[in-house]
Amino acid sequence: MGADFRFKNGLTYKKWYGKDFSMADLHDKSVYGLPELNREKIKNTKIIGNPGCYATSIELALLPLISKGIIEEKGIISDSKSGVTGSGRGLSESSHFTNCNESLSAYKIAKHRHTPEIEETLNSISNSDIKLTFTPHLLPINRGILSTIYTTPKQKVDMEKIHDEYCRFYASEPFVNVLPLGEVSKINNVRLSNYCDISLHYDEENGKLILISCIDNMIKGSAGQGIQNMNIALGFDEKEGLNFVPSIF
Amino acid sequence: MGADFRFKNGLTYKKWYGKDFSMADLHDKSVYGLPELNREKIKNTKIIGNPGCYATSIELALLPLISKGIIEEKGIISDSKSGVTGSGRGLSESSHFTNCNESLSAYKIAKHRHTPEIEETLNSISNSDIKLTFTPHLLPINRGILSTIYTTPKQKVDMEKIHDEYCRFYASEPFVNVLPLGEVSKINNVRLSNYCDISLHYDEENGKLILISCIDNMIKGSAGQGIQNMNIALGFDEKEGLNFVPSIF
Amino acid sequence: MGADFRFKNGLTYKKWYGKDFSMADLHDKSVYGLPELNREKIKNTKIIGNPGCYATSIELALLPLISKGIIEEKGIISDSKSGVTGSGRGLSESSHFTNCNESLSAYKIAKHRHTPEIEETLNSISNSDIKLTFTPHLLPINRGILSTIYTTPKQKVDMEKIHDEYCRFYASEPFVNVLPLGEVSKINNVRLSNYCDISLHYDEENGKLILISCIDNMIKGSAGQGIQNMNIALGFDEKEGLNFVPSIF
Amino acid sequence: MGADFRFKNGLTYKKWYGKDFSMADLHDKSVYGLPELNREKIKNTKIIGNPGCYATSIELALLPLISKGIIEEKGIISDSKSGVTGSGRGLSESSHFTNCNESLSAYKIAKHRHTPEIEETLNSISNSDIKLTFTPHLLPINRGILSTIYTTPKQKVDMEKIHDEYCRFYASEPFVNVLPLGEVSKINNVRLSNYCDISLHYDEENGKLILISCIDNMIKGSAGQGIQNMNIALGFDEKEGLNFVPSIF
Repeated sequence: MGADFRFKNGLTYKKWYGKDFSMADLHDKSVYGLPELNREKIKNTKIIGNPGCYATSIELALLPLISKGIIEEKGIISDSKSGVTGSGRGLSESSHFTNCNESLSAYKIAKHRHTPEIEETLNSISNSDIKLTFTPHLLPINRGILSTIYTTPKQKVDMEKIHDEYCRFYASEPFVNVLPLGEVSKINNVRLSNYCDISLHYDEENGKLILISCIDNMIKGSAGQGIQNMNIALGFDEKEGLNFVPSIF
Repeated sequence: MGADFRFKNGLTYKKWYGKDFSMADLHDKSVYGLPELNREKIKNTKIIGNPGCYATSIELALLPLISKGIIEEKGIISDSKSGVTGSGRGLSESSHFTNCNESLSAYKIAKHRHTPEIEETLNSISNSDIKLTFTPHLLPINRGILSTIYTTPKQKVDMEKIHDEYCRFYASEPFVNVLPLGEVSKINNVRLSNYCDISLHYDEENGKLILISCIDNMIKGSAGQGIQNMNIALGFDEKEGLNFVPSIF
Repeated sequence: MGADFRFKNGLTYKKWYGKDFSMADLHDKSVYGLPELNREKIKNTKIIGNPGCYATSIELALLPLISKGIIEEKGIISDSKSGVTGSGRGLSESSHFTNCNESLSAYKIAKHRHTPEIEETLNSISNSDIKLTFTPHLLPINRGILSTIYTTPKQKVDMEKIHDEYCRFYASEPFVNVLPLGEVSKINNVRLSNYCDISLHYDEENGKLILISCIDNMIKGSAGQGIQNMNIALGFDEKEGLNFVPSIF
Repeated sequence: MGADFRFKNGLTYKKWYGKDFSMADLHDKSVYGLPELNREKIKNTKIIGNPGCYATSIELALLPLISKGIIEEKGIISDSKSGVTGSGRGLSESSHFTNCNESLSAYKIAKHRHTPEIEETLNSISNSDIKLTFTPHLLPINRGILSTIYTTPKQKVDMEKIHDEYCRFYASEPFVNVLPLGEVSKINNVRLSNYCDISLHYDEENGKLILISCIDNMIKGSAGQGIQNMNIALGFDEKEGLNFVPSIF
């Protein structure tokens, strides 16, 4: 569940986490545990690096666009917002009720460790180097992540076609919902579930394709995805233990 | 306090609000009531268009950069988040407690009426056409707006110099605080005050200059700025009735 | 799920709900669906009046004391607090986010319709008339009820014995947890579950036995209890569909 | 602002705070700083024990009843609820955002140190010993206290007369509002002000007179009352620095 096996590139890991790969041979056998990207590889390993919570929300939103080369690889921006469980149970000024409640704040602007994780993951399916500007924010709620992602299509897009692309890409995925055009994904529609909801929006005037992606950071962003990976690796039904609906209230 | 006198361009107003300027002569005499931009003009009018709440938070953050031509005029992105008072007291599904609480959602993506207001205002001090992608979100808090604004400097920037520029620009402004480099503006530091806090951040890797701007949408974003404008127009002390500190809890 | 079959006494029903029993014969066959009180009767009926949410939290806390005649039947006080889902999805001033959030208010003081329901239910196991003062409050949370109940033991009590009594009373109940002495029940320990947590406290100085009872108003206080009743009536495993743990965050 | 000078009885202080009066002579000169009770004495001292937050909300609600001998002195119950600022800025499990948010819990049931403070204060105007059962609860809000207080009138009461009594009692008090009969005091009507709102309710069926009292624990419950006391002691206008309206949102 930690970051130890999320990277293939030891230099990136060292730069952002300050440590070397102490068991390099294990890294060769490990797989980055995003089932929607690496399901077949996960079936054949016992060492899975479960993705970061923010990383999951951003990668799932971008996978179809990157794999088809639809958007500029540089200049991607993710403005992400997470509930307080995202920062753990440790006691700190920033998680004291009166500091979070009725407020909103950004942190680790352009410095969060999920940035290189997302870039490395997306690079694995891209011909060109992915560059991401990532700003996390702390929301006064218990759980949930919403990422608003700004991308620049290489040419003018037809949103119906983009939407079809997403629907096809995720057609057989049990935990990714591509919302109908015109709908907007929101945190309470995925809360307490393993789902990722993705909605697609176009700022035609400025040539920006905007993705909004929501997960529950404690489930699809953490323990739920861990179980999903375990199910895949051990040959169980992938939905085992995860087959419940969101709790919208 | 409405949008009636926020625009000079009647076509823009008609496009976004669906109405003509019914009293065009009054529009000639009116002034857009952002004191930090138009203080001298406000002194000489009795018709003031009080700016929108989101518009205030975004314009104050961008004024120094735009007036100096430091950033690309196209491709500016504001990812903004507002408390529920921003959507008024009317009863609706979206303001029912159980729909807002423990959630976050975006709305009117690339379609919010403050977009043309911000563009027209910034164009008045720019040599080139400003283009903004603007995404508002509904936060589960009562009051406050935080705008995270992504800009692209025309060349590599020295953040100390940018910070100096902001400090100079707002040196004599009673209600704009430029935070020291390294600090991050947050909603509870401006709550229940007429202040706007602005912090500056650099994603050097991606050449993005990021601004975070906070106001209380009910005060600097509405009634407080109205009082500030009235004070200026009537020759009172500009801080009269507004001279109170934030309530951080 | 409505109040139609919660009462045996048509006069009480008429007084509080303004309507007659329109199908009196059905009332003869109906059972008040509190499984911990009426399990055997529920097995033999198809007409079950599912208890009110507040009523469930208060009745479960008081059943052991009333059935043993330990406390004064008069002068019982329940100070209860409920999340906003308790007042339904209808739009009203009182459920507008900005009116609930950061506030607390009481309503229908000594006038709430669950009062006669609780009294009638407890009277069925008491030799003397139960009289309850009941004050509901609206909490700024989505779900959960906490009832703080003040009772007067007829004589000085030994809390170990009272605790043993509760443990025995609920020993075979799948959804009632009697907390160890010294612990205090709280809403987030039952949220999203069908459990009722009860803790016991003694104000020896004033001769008051205080009970704190928590349920999720949407589950044990409503749909969950409905399922529990259905399971019993149809001969299913009583825990079917309800066999999940609370979500503490 | 601490408890040092809130007690006259050194034994009570020692029992609840574990310390002796180290400077007994100062205690002789000190006054309990509840202006509505001790205004004249406060004018003549420089040593003022500023009341506890819960104590303020409960004492103000009960003063008129106790001073007139209307209610039974024994068996008074206050079920009180406070925002998280009430427990200070220290870091603890109980003030971690995810533990407070979406929950409610009671603590120090019948053991809170404000109990003897309230009893001693009310005894000073009573012929008989006041006995209070007091249960504090932690609300998931920043600020505000609501106390729901259950009392037993010695005889049947006429609520119009009781209301008149309260209005007369507080007629010249700048910071106590007695609400019209039928209205219910709520936290957001006093937030960020030095006001105490009190509403009166009757459970005629059970002979209970119920008081609901709200203050902002940080203002009338602490710093605001401190300023009010300072103003009185130094001969300033009592409302100086406190003359602002509540912020209902």
